[in-house]
Amino acid sequence: MSGAEKTAGEFDLIDRYFRPLAGKGSLDLRDDVALLVPEPGTSLVVTTDMVVEHVDFFPDDPPEAIAARALRVNVSDLVAKGADPVAFVLALGLAADRNEAWVARFAAGLARDIGRFGIALVGGDLSRAGVTTVAITAFGRVPNGKLVPRGGAQPGDVVFVSGTIGDSALGLRLRRGELAPPPDVGHRHLLRRFLTPEPRIELAGAIRAHASAAMDLSDGLAGDLAKLCGASGVSARIDVASVPLSAPAAAMLAADGNLWQVILGGGEDYEILCTVPASAAAAFATAAATAGVACAPIGTIAAGERAPVFVGADGAPLAIARPGHDHFAGA
Amino acid sequence: MSGAEKTAGEFDLIDRYFRPLAGKGSLDLRDDVALLVPEPGTSLVVTTDMVVEHVDFFPDDPPEAIAARALRVNVSDLVAKGADPVAFVLALGLAADRNEAWVARFAAGLARDIGRFGIALVGGDLSRAGVTTVAITAFGRVPNGKLVPRGGAQPGDVVFVSGTIGDSALGLRLRRGELAPPPDVGHRHLLRRFLTPEPRIELAGAIRAHASAAMDLSDGLAGDLAKLCGASGVSARIDVASVPLSAPAAAMLAADGNLWQVILGGGEDYEILCTVPASAAAAFATAAATAGVACAPIGTIAAGERAPVFVGADGAPLAIARPGHDHFAGA
Repeated sequence: MSGAEKTAGEFDLIDRYFRPLAGKGSLDLRDDVALLVPEPGTSLVVTTDMVVEHVDFFPDDPPEAIAARALRVNVSDLVAKGADPVAFVLALGLAADRNEAWVARFAAGLARDIGRFGIALVGGDLSRAGVTTVAITAFGRVPNGKLVPRGGAQPGDVVFVSGTIGDSALGLRLRRGELAPPPDVGHRHLLRRFLTPEPRIELAGAIRAHASAAMDLSDGLAGDLAKLCGASGVSARIDVASVPLSAPAAAMLAADGNLWQVILGGGEDYEILCTVPASAAAAFATAAATAGVACAPIGTIAAGERAPVFVGADGAPLAIARPGHDHFAGA
Repeated sequence: MSGAEKTAGEFDLIDRYFRPLAGKGSLDLRDDVALLVPEPGTSLVVTTDMVVEHVDFFPDDPPEAIAARALRVNVSDLVAKGADPVAFVLALGLAADRNEAWVARFAAGLARDIGRFGIALVGGDLSRAGVTTVAITAFGRVPNGKLVPRGGAQPGDVVFVSGTIGDSALGLRLRRGELAPPPDVGHRHLLRRFLTPEPRIELAGAIRAHASAAMDLSDGLAGDLAKLCGASGVSARIDVASVPLSAPAAAMLAADGNLWQVILGGGEDYEILCTVPASAAAAFATAAATAGVACAPIGTIAAGERAPVFVGADGAPLAIARPGHDHFAGA
């Protein structure tokens, strides 16, 4: 243990690779703090996510993708609340085997997304660490009182999801060798969907305008819908055949019907799950289409507090196991 | 690698230990985000720091102290800018050997400081990690335009530091066994000063009212003063005999004059370094005394851009080596 004093090398890395990325409010990364001057009538939405080597990414993932992933999972949280991304701070813990070339590529990955999402790097911390760890806290802006909550769903609301579901969970299991790649279809699509999520930033306005409740899908559609329903005090009925799938996911599912468990139970889609009053469903669908994001209605919010029901093509409910195992069980 | 899907155990830990700590703006930690509604006329000051096992703390440090340290290094940054602490988000990566009892003690340490500093836990992320890692992003409030910068020092300003300098750096070296404990004095004081820094929260108002430039001391007085002077485009002349020392630090120094290198060059004091126009120096000293924080004048800001000069008791300048080694050298 060396104490947390910063070394000359750490300051040099900040100068060389992160200062050029610094945006408005960063005080040029020279002041230990960032300064956010809120626009009148707006509130600040804050989210934080940590991604850790061996847990959230593989050591040999491209550094650009690790950076993009760390930022995007945060941006996805903001968008799901109807907030427009504004700024973020980055705490980067570097394992000893990460050299300057790695940092340069990591910063390049960030730079690309900063431009694309219009989000400013305003502060950070760089330190050594046993395993490479990226903690990002991101800030978004909503008009006062306009945050779209998790708990606002009402019976009769239409349940929408963006994009396609399950690609990332299938991609992770392909990457780990737990599933065999489908013979004729592009399983690279699934690997890429795991490696680099696509936050639906274009959808923030439509969510803010129309959704009664929303969240991003990080822990699997089944589990996340249960959380949304729990927070709202409602239930839901989902038509499994309506859940949008990519072609490779559909092909894998055609070969093995049990993969519904992975598609609905696995995580890290980083798609939007939202509920919209039936009277606004057409307007939401139009706004989403105008924004260029495919959004599919997959079911309806129901009264009552029982767990959401996933109804299969045969009309029988599908039981979805909880993903993951209990890391802390017996601890 | 398991994917970042949260497990039931992680949700349970959040329920049991962190939700009871959640404050205003947290949305009860149920919504992936926090909501900060700014007070009109104020800006938000943001800082982020990551503390990592083996780098910033020892694996067997008390979990209460690890939590307090992670929060306090952030609070210290806010206070140094004249900001009043408001809220923070916590990303906690837990190594496999951290059990529920550890988490309970960590949360208890946070709870104590939350009460003491009047700062609200508003959001977070809990995940597994190879080594335990705590990343905190903290928010403070200043009236618009009142942030005390690092770069505002002017020739003639008086240089002040709070508390005593060097205790933490001596404590770390005692802990590592690199220095022998002094025979007759309380070296536990030094160990404690390393383990649990004391942010000078009572000083925020006096800094805001009187300081031309300020920062907290995390990388050693010599290095941090050089940074403050560099940002301000000035130099400084420090009277080493005026630098306030604790009794144990003074005793160790009396036995080994070379320890000035550790006292002025070592880090993690988490005291305040600030400059105050000569005309306001008496008012600042009075305000600091009223706030109950000892602040000592240690020198004067000078014109020019040469490195700050530390003048010893014999009138000759002391050369202070840069702390640490270059972790990234040759990378």
